[in-house]
Amino acid sequence: MKYISSQDTDFKAQLTALQAFETAQDPQVDAAVAAICADVQKRGDAAVIEYTNRFDHTQAQSMADLTLSQADLAAAFARLPADVQSALQTAAKRIESYHQHQKQQSWQYEDENGTLLGQQISALDRVGIYVPGGKAAYPSSVMMNAMPAHVAGVKEIIMVVPMPNGERNDIVLGAAYVAGVTQVFTIGGAQAVAALAYGTESIVQVDKITGPGNAYVAAAKRRVFGVVGIDMVAGPSEILVIADGTTPAKWVAMDLFSQSEHDEIAQAILITTDANYASEVEAQMQTLMKEMPRKAIIEASLANRGAIIQVQNLDEACEIANYLAPEHLELSVANPQEWAPKIRHAGAIFMGQYTSESLGDYCAGPNHVLPTSRTARFASPLGVYDFQKRSSLIQVSAEGAKQLGQIASILAHGEGLTAHACAAELRME
Amino acid sequence: MKYISSQDTDFKAQLTALQAFETAQDPQVDAAVAAICADVQKRGDAAVIEYTNRFDHTQAQSMADLTLSQADLAAAFARLPADVQSALQTAAKRIESYHQHQKQQSWQYEDENGTLLGQQISALDRVGIYVPGGKAAYPSSVMMNAMPAHVAGVKEIIMVVPMPNGERNDIVLGAAYVAGVTQVFTIGGAQAVAALAYGTESIVQVDKITGPGNAYVAAAKRRVFGVVGIDMVAGPSEILVIADGTTPAKWVAMDLFSQSEHDEIAQAILITTDANYASEVEAQMQTLMKEMPRKAIIEASLANRGAIIQVQNLDEACEIANYLAPEHLELSVANPQEWAPKIRHAGAIFMGQYTSESLGDYCAGPNHVLPTSRTARFASPLGVYDFQKRSSLIQVSAEGAKQLGQIASILAHGEGLTAHACAAELRME
Repeated sequence: MKYISSQDTDFKAQLTALQAFETAQDPQVDAAVAAICADVQKRGDAAVIEYTNRFDHTQAQSMADLTLSQADLAAAFARLPADVQSALQTAAKRIESYHQHQKQQSWQYEDENGTLLGQQISALDRVGIYVPGGKAAYPSSVMMNAMPAHVAGVKEIIMVVPMPNGERNDIVLGAAYVAGVTQVFTIGGAQAVAALAYGTESIVQVDKITGPGNAYVAAAKRRVFGVVGIDMVAGPSEILVIADGTTPAKWVAMDLFSQSEHDEIAQAILITTDANYASEVEAQMQTLMKEMPRKAIIEASLANRGAIIQVQNLDEACEIANYLAPEHLELSVANPQEWAPKIRHAGAIFMGQYTSESLGDYCAGPNHVLPTSRTARFASPLGVYDFQKRSSLIQVSAEGAKQLGQIASILAHGEGLTAHACAAELRME
Repeated sequence: MKYISSQDTDFKAQLTALQAFETAQDPQVDAAVAAICADVQKRGDAAVIEYTNRFDHTQAQSMADLTLSQADLAAAFARLPADVQSALQTAAKRIESYHQHQKQQSWQYEDENGTLLGQQISALDRVGIYVPGGKAAYPSSVMMNAMPAHVAGVKEIIMVVPMPNGERNDIVLGAAYVAGVTQVFTIGGAQAVAALAYGTESIVQVDKITGPGNAYVAAAKRRVFGVVGIDMVAGPSEILVIADGTTPAKWVAMDLFSQSEHDEIAQAILITTDANYASEVEAQMQTLMKEMPRKAIIEASLANRGAIIQVQNLDEACEIANYLAPEHLELSVANPQEWAPKIRHAGAIFMGQYTSESLGDYCAGPNHVLPTSRTARFASPLGVYDFQKRSSLIQVSAEGAKQLGQIASILAHGEGLTAHACAAELRME
């Protein structure tokens, strides 16, 4: 793991190198995705079936072979052990309860001349949820994507999840059942994104697609953006732990592991004011590493992108956090409430020693779909607000038309838009 | 203008043809934009200056020649006629007051086991506003983009506006002054978008870019999406007027013109229950057309994409509106409040006969940057919410760690993520 001190003369450069991640769009991936999207748009189901059979090694004859109903989801749930059923249900309840706080309501008011102004909020009609399959089939992702849509009032939640070699994952399907998913297609990749975006004979066009995926899925989402809404283009997962030394070193070591075990390009960084504590955490990591089934991934991730940053004080730590704008930020300090308001850019802030990131990943309530790769500078966790949209409301009164008409007329003439001006002027007579 | 009746046997096909607009991404534009973006990322100011001199026919020697300070904006404002100054100021005040209603506040609550959950709202640090130049230099666009950022609390609002041949537009710069823009660069096109997204020696990297532009600007925004946030990729402007015949035909005719005068691919559609009224509106259009300075554009737009749709009743009209999901929807009917709740998909709803779209474009208060090309199915008007973002807050109590730890442990093991499970389990001891 890399050691950096904020006192290093090249600290800024080291920090920049640390956050540098190749986000360039691969032209080969782009070209492949463009061809798949165009093909699905043109040939619909037939193209989706072909790509699925080719990439996921399935033998589907028709879309029916790639479709699961709510009854299939209920059956998958019923097959789960009781403790898993109960864990899914409790997590769902907590996630739902948190997301209820995000629901927005329509509002309106009247101004001094009797003109009504407001905003009407409505849910999206139909959304598509992309759930990665294969080695990273996560039931928690299903819930974190579907639940906010459900709370927003979306009527149809269509999920796509590739099932390579036709292997069904009961826990993923059981999570879909608990989260209120309407229908599941066992397809993935760019072909799934294109099918949701353009619609096919069997798949109705959705209004928005959310959920993470590989480079092909990301490129496809970017491509169909505008035809449908998309949430974000997700990068590798990141954790930044700010520790003042009051949390057991073993706990922080495991928190760093829980990020790096995702994949070789995940990033785990520890910032601490205490050099001894840094050594302690590192010693714990060496001990704990032996027990980790995903040891190879953790080691690669820490070697590639991990770091321990030594700082002078917690103010400096917060400044660095704002620069890095991490997906997950643990404020593993004695008084986290004092420091949280200084964090401007982070997807989620985990406060205090008991708040391991993993509790937030599964069941604390907030969403685990979070902005990565410094996009927390401008982006938010996935939420109910992603599945609601707004229409402005304006009802100008007769008196308002006189007052506003004058202003509109002057500005419209200033822009050379005579019809705009006339439309306002006619209502002033 | 095309006549369609909801009773036509091929009505659905006609409607589909009407909304069909070629949104395909032009590979040539994409390639040109990719090259410009890469060049600006690599060579910074030098590249920006070269492209600007080439495309905008300027003779800039350095970025200083393409930079305007707040003093320059104040001077431009001072040169405007008094009535224009006052119109800009009143419009700004109304826009600000409306947008204040959109400001979101942080919230938090404690659950039954003492765990704190919430969401911390913060403003973006720095945003870039793209304002088209040349034939479509709109001061209203400046205000509609800058004002919500200003209300959100964004500290730095950087505006780019191309000034072909170096011609400065005082009303555009005056609007920037009124709207609280921090700094202006007189650059445009893909090079301006790239400069804002990546930063150069003279232009600091922003966190989000908003504002409409041509195909090159749209392609550049799509390309840099992820490095920075973007608002949307705007298509041609549209109006849909639903009229029950109670609004003077002349007013509705002018409202249709005020959309079609934007450009040849703008779309104006009238839906009415009354065939005689449709004829009246058309007769008015023929008369009024003669006085329109932008007659050629209006005629082309109406011929290309205009339509009058005859329906049986207003319920049917609302259904069609929901399918078309128009940018601007006028409910020019006797009782608009009855019908507005039936509209699920529209950028802005203008209610009643006094509410011409043009009043909303300039000064009613709501934003005029609205979702086009059916994106109102999932997108919202530009607003304060586009310049604020959220961080989840979680502080788990000792007791909460025990309860949540069990659930997280079960689900993490289910996903094969042992470190996630261990991080939760350690806190249960």
